[in-house]
Amino acid sequence: MKKFMNSADDFLKESLQGFGAAHQDIVNCHYDPNFITRATPTKEGKVALISGGGSGHEPMHGGLVGYGMLDAACPGFVFSSPTPDQMLAAAEKVDSGAGVLFIVKNYSGDVMNFQMAAEMMQGPNESVLTNDDVAVEDSSFTTGRRGVAATVVVEKIVGSLAEHGGSLQECKALGDKVNKNSGSMGVAFSSCTVPAAGKPNFDIGDDEMEFGVGIHGEPGRRRDKMKSAQEITNELLEAINEDLKPEANEEILLFVNGMGGTPLTELYLIYDNAKNMLDKKNIKISRSLVGNYCTSLEMQGASITLTKLDEELLKHWDSSVHTAAMRWGV
Amino acid sequence: MKKFMNSADDFLKESLQGFGAAHQDIVNCHYDPNFITRATPTKEGKVALISGGGSGHEPMHGGLVGYGMLDAACPGFVFSSPTPDQMLAAAEKVDSGAGVLFIVKNYSGDVMNFQMAAEMMQGPNESVLTNDDVAVEDSSFTTGRRGVAATVVVEKIVGSLAEHGGSLQECKALGDKVNKNSGSMGVAFSSCTVPAAGKPNFDIGDDEMEFGVGIHGEPGRRRDKMKSAQEITNELLEAINEDLKPEANEEILLFVNGMGGTPLTELYLIYDNAKNMLDKKNIKISRSLVGNYCTSLEMQGASITLTKLDEELLKHWDSSVHTAAMRWGV
Repeated sequence: MKKFMNSADDFLKESLQGFGAAHQDIVNCHYDPNFITRATPTKEGKVALISGGGSGHEPMHGGLVGYGMLDAACPGFVFSSPTPDQMLAAAEKVDSGAGVLFIVKNYSGDVMNFQMAAEMMQGPNESVLTNDDVAVEDSSFTTGRRGVAATVVVEKIVGSLAEHGGSLQECKALGDKVNKNSGSMGVAFSSCTVPAAGKPNFDIGDDEMEFGVGIHGEPGRRRDKMKSAQEITNELLEAINEDLKPEANEEILLFVNGMGGTPLTELYLIYDNAKNMLDKKNIKISRSLVGNYCTSLEMQGASITLTKLDEELLKHWDSSVHTAAMRWGV
Repeated sequence: MKKFMNSADDFLKESLQGFGAAHQDIVNCHYDPNFITRATPTKEGKVALISGGGSGHEPMHGGLVGYGMLDAACPGFVFSSPTPDQMLAAAEKVDSGAGVLFIVKNYSGDVMNFQMAAEMMQGPNESVLTNDDVAVEDSSFTTGRRGVAATVVVEKIVGSLAEHGGSLQECKALGDKVNKNSGSMGVAFSSCTVPAAGKPNFDIGDDEMEFGVGIHGEPGRRRDKMKSAQEITNELLEAINEDLKPEANEEILLFVNGMGGTPLTELYLIYDNAKNMLDKKNIKISRSLVGNYCTSLEMQGASITLTKLDEELLKHWDSSVHTAAMRWGV
């Protein structure tokens, strides 16, 4: 295992310390229990958005804390669910009276722990569960579909509504809508190594790819031989379209997400290849996002997310945001 | 070789097409010869900044084209210098009468081709040569020191001056100053594969790292056994400090740059470890940048850049910028 680390035990803490120091204008990191809040307290009467999950998917979620997105994030150890005490501590810190919306990716551990925190909380709260990965029903750590990169889109769009005065119920409804309007699927060329494990999560041959991989290296639809980028892109889009059924002339967000170890040039090449196919179907790419947002440590691979957009979603996608990983308008 | 590609011949073109389409609000991509300009023409009387170099270092330089930074970028094939006709075509497109400043990383091919373009140009022009890599004097493709991640800092700061009315001579002088105020050094844990070559640029053992590596995988100071992040960080900073000699209480930009295949968590951990050492020396971290900006395809590794800041540099670092890879204030 080759990693920049001093010890597996200190890995997360040192990384959070660096994150907090590098972005002290945007975030505060809190320890024991670990959670990240905005540097500026949540304003009174604003619904507080909290997400979290295992570490190893950065910049999601800590890099998405800030104006126009999350109020807090709870990082678990690498690929391990955060605990209810982290979520409760975060909720106590950021709840300003208008309630807390938990944004949870569909993994059994995350769901259980967020549910426990929600039950222990005194104040009003709701949860949005993301399950955008169309690859498989049920997986190593999941009942139902996995929550992957569309979580970033949910956090951006609901973050905007909350910032502009949306109520807890309105934020919950919009989050559910964005999740329903989104579909994702990914492919991996390589595995990744959890620091505490010290060895790759799975083995993969020199000429193989995992088609429909999960963001912890969970099996997808099949182990396949390497193919051209255009073939891979077409197959990912076909699987997403089959589920999402975008119509001709419908406006979408095309989000090409890197898993961590794939160069930007390749992500843009996937974007080009995806545009080729979407253009043929007269599906209109209205907004774009390309980069490493929902990663799997150093995994080589990528995922595509489509989100069907309407006027409401467009407005909230475009509104100002100021986080470590996404920033525009300010 | 596992890459998202259809053919080595089409790799760059398809990637540029995707880049241009995903960021059509910011850039225009031009082909045969290949160059990238801003979507909005350079305003009259503004010095035009042009950079370029081999592809494979994205987002540098195409991702740095836009308001407050570059007017144009010329991408060569992966790890190959762009040609004078690319630079000339870009210069003709963006020169608005106030002259052109070429920002060139110190590699023999880049230097020769930019010089040729400069000589063929009709209008006034100047060049800033970056050579911030303190690792070695002379290298596989370089006489003198290599130009690496500080080029991003030069482009940001000089880009701001040009945007705010700086003359060609003033921009040239500020570029030279930022370069002189900067020192960088990197380390690689893995190699990287140029698409057209199909095999890794160099071999490296499972327990080895290349200390002082170049951004094309050029040899550094030594091949070393793996060490802890704190030891690696200390050694990189010692080498930079020996060259740059920042004084106690001096303000610096701490820039932790990923080579492409290293997770953000590890880059932030390096930041934390670097802060430990800089704090001890009372060197004041006034500004921070952490992320993949000057990459080497999918190489696992990172570099540290320090830039000594004064009031002028701080002002231009903080000013608004709107590019695909760096955006704030707008």
